[in-house]
Amino acid sequence: MSNNDSLPGFDRRTLLAALAAAPAGLVLPVSTPAQAAEGSDPLPSWIDGPARDAILAFVRATTDSGSAQFVPPEDRIATFDQDGTLWVEHPIYTQVVYCFDRVPVVVKDKPKLADIEPFKTVLSGDREAIARLPLEDLIKIAAATLTGMDVDTFGHEVAEWLAKARDPRWKRPYTDLTYLPQIELLSFLRANGFKTYIVTGGGQDFVRVYSDRVYRIPREQVIGTAGAVSYEYDAEGQPELIKDPKLLLNDNYAGKAEGIHLMIGRRPCLAFGNSTGDREMLEYTKAGDGARLSMILLHDDGEREYAYGPAQGLPDTRVGTFTQGLYDEATKDGWIVVSMKNDWKRIFAFEG
Amino acid sequence: MSNNDSLPGFDRRTLLAALAAAPAGLVLPVSTPAQAAEGSDPLPSWIDGPARDAILAFVRATTDSGSAQFVPPEDRIATFDQDGTLWVEHPIYTQVVYCFDRVPVVVKDKPKLADIEPFKTVLSGDREAIARLPLEDLIKIAAATLTGMDVDTFGHEVAEWLAKARDPRWKRPYTDLTYLPQIELLSFLRANGFKTYIVTGGGQDFVRVYSDRVYRIPREQVIGTAGAVSYEYDAEGQPELIKDPKLLLNDNYAGKAEGIHLMIGRRPCLAFGNSTGDREMLEYTKAGDGARLSMILLHDDGEREYAYGPAQGLPDTRVGTFTQGLYDEATKDGWIVVSMKNDWKRIFAFEG
Repeated sequence: MSNNDSLPGFDRRTLLAALAAAPAGLVLPVSTPAQAAEGSDPLPSWIDGPARDAILAFVRATTDSGSAQFVPPEDRIATFDQDGTLWVEHPIYTQVVYCFDRVPVVVKDKPKLADIEPFKTVLSGDREAIARLPLEDLIKIAAATLTGMDVDTFGHEVAEWLAKARDPRWKRPYTDLTYLPQIELLSFLRANGFKTYIVTGGGQDFVRVYSDRVYRIPREQVIGTAGAVSYEYDAEGQPELIKDPKLLLNDNYAGKAEGIHLMIGRRPCLAFGNSTGDREMLEYTKAGDGARLSMILLHDDGEREYAYGPAQGLPDTRVGTFTQGLYDEATKDGWIVVSMKNDWKRIFAFEG
Repeated sequence: MSNNDSLPGFDRRTLLAALAAAPAGLVLPVSTPAQAAEGSDPLPSWIDGPARDAILAFVRATTDSGSAQFVPPEDRIATFDQDGTLWVEHPIYTQVVYCFDRVPVVVKDKPKLADIEPFKTVLSGDREAIARLPLEDLIKIAAATLTGMDVDTFGHEVAEWLAKARDPRWKRPYTDLTYLPQIELLSFLRANGFKTYIVTGGGQDFVRVYSDRVYRIPREQVIGTAGAVSYEYDAEGQPELIKDPKLLLNDNYAGKAEGIHLMIGRRPCLAFGNSTGDREMLEYTKAGDGARLSMILLHDDGEREYAYGPAQGLPDTRVGTFTQGLYDEATKDGWIVVSMKNDWKRIFAFEG
C-alpha cells in the first residue's frame, strides 16, 4: 500500500475549509434514513438520460444469462466511494468535524492537554489560529481522537456523536446528507445480485458505525483507511483490540485498488467515485474484461448542493477533488460522468 | 498487526518436516470435493457426543428468536483456521510444498538463479542440504515464488499446480484432504444464517484460489497472511496489481484477532482452530457476550490421519501447534476440544 498521505482520510485543504463549519451542538435524535423507493421504476430520483441509461443497460447486460456480458452473481461487485459520492463532503469531511468536536472530550479525560498545543488552540475556538495549525498538529488531533481506545469504545463514541451532531447548512444529522439517487442505485444493484461495497478514504472503523443503517451495507463491506489495532488484555484479563496511531491501509489513490484486492480479492464490475482519490479504482474497474461501468459524480449544483471541480473551472492542482485531468480521463476511457444538476431529479430524501 | 514471524504462513519446524514429502508429480485432473450431506442429520460424520451436542446446542440457542442468546443474522460470524482445522497440515503446509515445487519454474524464467543460493540447493534435490537452509533463504524462496507477479497470474499458477499436485500419502489432490466433518459443519452453519470465514496463517491470495470450490467460502471471506500489492501499469498501459515481498498482515497469533477486526469488523460467535496460532482468535471469540463457541481440533488419530500435540505428550515448546498450554487454557475457559479419533466417524470424503 502506498503511504503518500500521512493523515488517514484527511485533506489539508478541506481541513482548512472546515473552519467555516460550526461545531455540532446537542439537538434532536437522529431520524430514519431514506430508503430506495420500490416500484416499477427502480431509479425514481434519476432523470431519464445517458447516465441512467448506462446504468440500466449495464445491469441488463450483466444479469441476463443469455447475454454475452453475463456476470455470475459471485463476481457482481460494485464499489462506491463515500465522501462526495454517497454523501456531502463539502466544505469539510464529516469525520474531520468529528475529530475537532472530540477534542474537548479528550481534554476532559486528560486535563493536562488543555495547556498543550494543538489542543490549546482548538479549545480556544480561534478559527484563524486553528487554520494555521501545521499538518503535524492535525495528525496529533486525529491520533488523540481516533486512537488509543478499544474498538468497541470508539464505535460507541462515534454513534453518540452522530446522534447529536448537526450539519450547519441543513441543520440535520450528517447521516441525512446521503444522496437519494445513490441510495436507490445501491438498492437496485443489490436487487440484481450485486454485492455493494463502500471504498472510502475515510476511516474504516468510523464508516462501519453507520454503514448498515444508512446504506444497508454491512460493516464487512466497508473498506476504508485503516489503522493497526493491538490485541491486549484489560484489567480483568479480557481481550480487547486497541486502536493504534499507525497507518495500515491508506485507502486513497492506488490504495483503493490495493485495498479492494486485500479485502475482496476480486476486480469490481462497477465503481463510482468523484475525485482523483478514486482514479485508480475507476481505472482498475474499467480495465477488466466484459461489461464494466466506471462512474464519477460531478458536483455542479451550487444551488441544491455545491459546485466545485471542473464545474467551477478550477485548475488541476487540487488533490482529492474532481480535477479537469480526471474529467479528461473519464471522457477518453468511457467512464460515465454523472451531473448532479442534470441527472438527479432529487438529491436528498428530506427534500420531499 | 504484530510482525513476530518474518515469513508469512511458514513455520520453521514444519518446513523442515517437509523434506520427508516428495515433490508433487504430474498425475490426474482434480476431483470434485465432497459436499456436506443434506438430510435429517446435518452432521452425519460427527459421532454423537459432547462436541456434536455443543454445536447443536449453540446453533439452536443463537438462531431461535425466542432464545435469550439469539443472535441477529448479521452478527452470525463463524471463523475457521485452515491448516490442521479444515484440511491436513502434517507433515508440511501445502503452501510450502507449492513454494518448493515452483522453484524450477522460477529458475526457468531466470536461469541465472540456478547458480545462486538457495535456489541451487533446492534444485539439487539434496534433502539434507535443503533442511539446513537458514530462515533467510527460506524467505528468499517464498519471495521468489509468491511475489513479483500480478495477482491474476499468481492465481493461475496456483490453480494449475493444485490441479496436478498430489499428496504423497494419499496420492490425491491436496484439496481432497479436507475434513468431511468440517465441510458438514460449515454447511450446517451457513444453513442457519452464519457467514463462514477462513482465518488462516497461510497466504490469503493462495487460499482464495480454491476456497469457493473446496469450502464454498467466497474469496472475500478468506482472511490470511497478506503481502502488500502495488498498483502499476503494464506495457499496454493497463493497470495491474503486483504482489510485493512486503508483509502487510501476519495472520497468526494476535494477528488473527486483529485481522478479523480489519476484514470483518465484528467479533465472531464461533471460532475453530487447532494450534497456538489460533489462541487469540479463540480467546477473543469466547470473551464476547452471549452464546460463544470456541473449538479446537485435537490430532489424536495416528491411524486415519496424524497424532501430534498433546495427544503425543509433546512438551509446550512448539510454535503453531496444539500445545499442552493451549489444552489447559481450553479446559479452563470452556472451549470444546474435538478429538478426531472420538468425535469424527469419518475424516475424508474419499474414504467412503
